[in-house]
Amino acid sequence: MAARRTGRRPGDPALTRQAILDAARGAFADHGYESTSIRRVAGDAAVDPALVHHYFGSKEDLFLAALDVPVTPDEVLKSALAGGVDEVGERMVRTFLSVWDSPRGTAAAAMLRSAVAHPWIAKLLREFMLNRVAKRALSELGITDQVELRASLVASQMLGLALTRHVLDFEPIASVPAETVVAALAPTIQRYVTGDISAEADAVG
Amino acid sequence: MAARRTGRRPGDPALTRQAILDAARGAFADHGYESTSIRRVAGDAAVDPALVHHYFGSKEDLFLAALDVPVTPDEVLKSALAGGVDEVGERMVRTFLSVWDSPRGTAAAAMLRSAVAHPWIAKLLREFMLNRVAKRALSELGITDQVELRASLVASQMLGLALTRHVLDFEPIASVPAETVVAALAPTIQRYVTGDISAEADAVG
Repeated sequence: MAARRTGRRPGDPALTRQAILDAARGAFADHGYESTSIRRVAGDAAVDPALVHHYFGSKEDLFLAALDVPVTPDEVLKSALAGGVDEVGERMVRTFLSVWDSPRGTAAAAMLRSAVAHPWIAKLLREFMLNRVAKRALSELGITDQVELRASLVASQMLGLALTRHVLDFEPIASVPAETVVAALAPTIQRYVTGDISAEADAVG
Repeated sequence: MAARRTGRRPGDPALTRQAILDAARGAFADHGYESTSIRRVAGDAAVDPALVHHYFGSKEDLFLAALDVPVTPDEVLKSALAGGVDEVGERMVRTFLSVWDSPRGTAAAAMLRSAVAHPWIAKLLREFMLNRVAKRALSELGITDQVELRASLVASQMLGLALTRHVLDFEPIASVPAETVVAALAPTIQRYVTGDISAEADAVG
């Protein structure tokens, strides 16, 4: 039994798949998303690169599988940008909730817990979300100033929503209907994406 | 050595103090803040109630010590409400950062990690913050509608800020000056506290 658990038998798909995922996590953690190739992961897992493609598709797909990300950038972008720049705040909150309030929310909450517990996961997810989602979204909307600050402000409110609604179970935000959350948060996200975020605050004596 | 580690010698202040803290955590977790008395904690720790008062002061002080909360409600309220209702958003962000951006931020981040890992800590902190901080603050500001929803919206943005700035280290929000955060977040918090949070969102086709 012990040998079966620790060794990998050639041709056992479940073990091969797991070995690829383990190698991918290690490679992404050590080298980041951009510098990790399918070839490197295949080498680390001692399998043919074609097998990695066969099991997981593209590098992006492999990344999403390795970190248990329950949604793809294309899905997020398509939904969030469907209505144009004037209603992007509302669409982004709605898109976010369509994942977190669904059965996929369990995986999303697990991902957030992992990021809190493991700094390397937080760093990888942050870089991936910034480069593969936020920058593309803001570019398509024609936003060019303070792109990274806007992205992290959006993250601060969206992840704070996930934290209070789905991880800490703060009432009533944990149980109010999605539309209540949309009404409350849409103007916030809209301002972070398209509004004036750097107006000097009034001095306080 | 083993006996010293596991037993408690009468008169050893460090061990007595630790026994009281352990009993307090257990009592608060089992019965909540309101139903836990100094007398109950003293009984569970097998010490005289006067000793609990001697080491920790009031029940509120004992709670803050047991959960490693690095700031008192009075301190938060005094600072956040100093400027009146029109600038409460700005004052709240500034007060929040005055704790999290200080050496006390390390303890605050540890508290947030504990809440993510342990649901009973999240529940206790949420009830304590709602009843001892948020409700008092909104009452002093004359806000009477949707008090609990407003409180959890504020929590969603403030804890999201703590999460991205101090736990996940999302750049650039992790390293921008406090004033940049204040300028960006003050209007959000102001609206959650005093503004219209329930306007129906436009329907999206």
